[in-house]
Order: sequence, then structure tokens, then C-alpha cells
Amino acid sequence: MVQSVHRAVQILRELASGGPRLGVTELAERLGVAKPTVHALLRTLEIEGLVGQDRDSSKYQLGPNLVPLGNAYLDTHELRTRSLTWADALANRSGEAVWVGVLTGDHVLVVHHAFRPEGAVQILEVGASIPWNTCALGKAIAASSCADVRERLLAGEPAVLTGASMTDRKALAGHLEDVLKAGYATEDQESAIGEAGIASPVFDRSGEVAGAIGIVGPVERLLGESARQELAVAVRETARNLSRDLGAPSATRRVRPTGSRAS
Amino acid sequence: MVQSVHRAVQILRELASGGPRLGVTELAERLGVAKPTVHALLRTLEIEGLVGQDRDSSKYQLGPNLVPLGNAYLDTHELRTRSLTWADALANRSGEAVWVGVLTGDHVLVVHHAFRPEGAVQILEVGASIPWNTCALGKAIAASSCADVRERLLAGEPAVLTGASMTDRKALAGHLEDVLKAGYATEDQESAIGEAGIASPVFDRSGEVAGAIGIVGPVERLLGESARQELAVAVRETARNLSRDLGAPSATRRVRPTGSRAS
Repeated sequence: MVQSVHRAVQILRELASGGPRLGVTELAERLGVAKPTVHALLRTLEIEGLVGQDRDSSKYQLGPNLVPLGNAYLDTHELRTRSLTWADALANRSGEAVWVGVLTGDHVLVVHHAFRPEGAVQILEVGASIPWNTCALGKAIAASSCADVRERLLAGEPAVLTGASMTDRKALAGHLEDVLKAGYATEDQESAIGEAGIASPVFDRSGEVAGAIGIVGPVERLLGESARQELAVAVRETARNLSRDLGAPSATRRVRPTGSRAS
Repeated sequence: MVQSVHRAVQILRELASGGPRLGVTELAERLGVAKPTVHALLRTLEIEGLVGQDRDSSKYQLGPNLVPLGNAYLDTHELRTRSLTWADALANRSGEAVWVGVLTGDHVLVVHHAFRPEGAVQILEVGASIPWNTCALGKAIAASSCADVRERLLAGEPAVLTGASMTDRKALAGHLEDVLKAGYATEDQESAIGEAGIASPVFDRSGEVAGAIGIVGPVERLLGESARQELAVAVRETARNLSRDLGAPSATRRVRPTGSRAS
């Protein structure tokens, strides 16, 4: 590990999470590093356009060159690029917004968002990061991951975003078994009151889970008895088609890589 | 300058621009740095989630954690957050897509994109980076910048994206004078055939230019004799209102900070 690079990334994280603007002294305290060190790192990051200094307050904030780097990640992300037409088709078929997500750490990063065809103003959620256990995308990914990843996720402290968030590890592990059998996961207001989701895992050519695709919307529309089944079928079919597009082995082989349990 | 941080950023830039995936050897050659050094930097960046290694090829690509950092920049960017409602209003008034941009180096970074109210599928352009001399946003910013920035921009090699791109430095300098007088800049197919733009500069509380806001669309709709003037008025008024929102000094004082020439 190159320590100065690690510290530079820590600075970026602090600026991303710890309020919009921080001074050298505040950053030095947060990182537990001497002020001259922090200052040298900030100067380098500023030259690279990854941080900027506010004219008035001389405090630091994130810099514009982070945006093209984030976009380059999204543009070269195979799951995302291949999902664009499938997400549009699913949004049209379901009448709901579609999200595509990948697992990063214990969160799901939304890498694509297709707006629902009709409706009011919608906010683009690309870049949003959601605890895995509180969303359908995360549960779909966890259920289909190899045992190592699944155990790592289940070992962590489950996030609590609403009263409906699942926090009991044993119940969560059992729930993942059900998700694996059904081929889709649901969220019932576990990340936000009134919101629901249905998602299925997407596999790549190695046969391992690459992420998930699913719909999000009001709980009344998504999880009502009649709609739910039809929507789940649409989501699962879309995920299967997208997986095929990514070169995944045929659907019959699409079971947990551990091989311990076939769906 | 902290060299290892500089090199780590160089690696990110190479991965962003030089094809989706690069190996350690290729990166070492591009950076002119020994392979073990590159490997140590890559390992650190991988731990931080800023790069990822492809399972099949063991080559490196950009990592997911760049996306939340880029989003955090956009979320804390005052011009962008203040522009959201003004951009929507301008899109409704003009019937065209609206872009908000800031200058980074000699490119304009699109930090907000309000879709046009009606029309076919539209691709979100947030994060796009356009040479300053080929777009209305860039020319609006350059014309209103302090002399230092303007001279730096004019001293660079003008980008050529179409046959209409302005490349003569003297003509470009003269054009910026006209832009300053009119209060808005136009692009006539200088970055893409068939596309046009109209943009005005936005000022912050220091009285300096913070960026620009403008409309983009087909040249036939934007620059036709009758439409052009009405659209330019809408763009200019929006930019003035957004500047006031940012705390800019009153419009009468909004001349070049050099004071050498009043509009």
C-alpha cells in the first residue's frame, strides 16, 4: 500500500462525506496526519483538478476532474453499457423506473437508471449507493454470490434505514435462500417508506454474478398481489436476457458457483 | 507535489482515456515508471475501489468508487445546485435542452443537463467535456473571464471538431469581444454537424465568471433568424437570474474584472 495515495483518497472521501468544504486543519485532524503533509497532498490533488480551493474561505472542496473519471468508469462498464436497451425495454414493459446496480463493498452502486415512461419529475439516481440488505438489487446479488461474498455480507452489521429494514442475520440468510429459489428479490419499504423494488441477478461469462437489474416504485403499484407476479416475471426475463448478452452460460447452469445447492 | 499521488492520478487518466483495460506493463510504459512501482500504486488504488482488476485478463480498469466521488462534486457544486430550477424553467421556455458548464483547463465540463420538454430519447450529457472554443458555453465563459484566463485559453491550440470550428486565434479573440457586447455566445455546428448552442456567462458573488448556462439543439431550430433573438434573450435573462441567485453584484457592474473595457 502506497501511504500517500491512501491518504490522498482519504482526503477525497472526507471532502465527499464530511460537508462540502474543509480546511487544512480540519483535514489534518480527521486523518491524524501533520498539517504540512495534508497541505502537500491537497496541492497535488488541486493541480490534478481533483480538489479545488474556495476563493473566499481558502477551504477545499472536491474538484471537477472527478466527474469525467466517474463517467469513464460508467462508460467502460460492460454490464452498464449492455443494460441500456434492456433497461429501456423493461421500463416500457413495466411502466416503472429501472435500476442497474453492482456490489461495491457492502453497498449497491446504481450504475444505470432508466426513467419510467410516464410520470412527474424524476431525479437521476446514477451514483447512488444503497446498503445491500435494504434493496432488492442488493439482495438479488447477495443471494447469487459465491459463499465467500455472501458470508462477508451477512457477517457485517445490517444497515437500518426504515422500520422495515431486515436486520436479523439468520432471517436474512434464510431470505436469501428464498430469493435464490424464486430468481428475484423484493424490497418492501426497507430503504424508504412507500418505496418498493423487484430485482434479479445478472451473470457474466464467468458464470458469476455481475450485478442486478430491477424496477423501483411505489409499494402500492409494485407489490400489490396481482401486479407483483407479472412484474417479477418481466424483471427475471430481462435479467436472463441481459446475462445472455454478457455471455453468461445457459440458464440451466445458473446456480450458485459453490454448487452446494441447485435452485 | 507528491509524486506517488501524481502517478496514481496519471494511472486513472490513462485508464479513462487509453482504452477500457490496461495491464501493468502497458501502464509502466505509458508512465515511464518501473513495473513494481506501478503495481504498488494499482494495488493501493484497487483497495480504495478506484481501480478494479478484470478476472479473465488480469488487466486493470477504473473502479466503482470514482462514481460517488464525481457525484459528490456535482452535489456540492453551488453553480450546479442553484441552476437546477433555472435550467428547468429555461428548458420549458425555449423548448430545448439546457446545459450548465464550468471551465476546467481548456475544456467545458457539463455539470447539469435539463432535457428538452418534448422529444425523442435523450442522452444525459453530464460529465461531457468539450473544448472551450467549439461550444457556446466555452465562448461565453472565455469572453467574460479575467484577462489572464482569456489569454491562456487563446494561447492554446484551438480544437478542431468540425469544419466550422473556429481556429484562427485573432478571429477568435475578436469574436470574444462581440460575445461580451451581446451578452451571449453562439455555436454554429462547431462541435458537431447540425448542432447549435446559445449560452450566457454566469457570475458568482466575487463578480467573477463561475460558468455558463445555455441551450443546445438542432441548428435549424436555434439559429433561424426569427428564433435566435428570442432564444438569446431567454438565455441571457436566465443567466442573469442565476447569477443573482449566486450573489453576483448587480448587472450594471458585470463587466470584465480587468476593468479595461466596459461592455
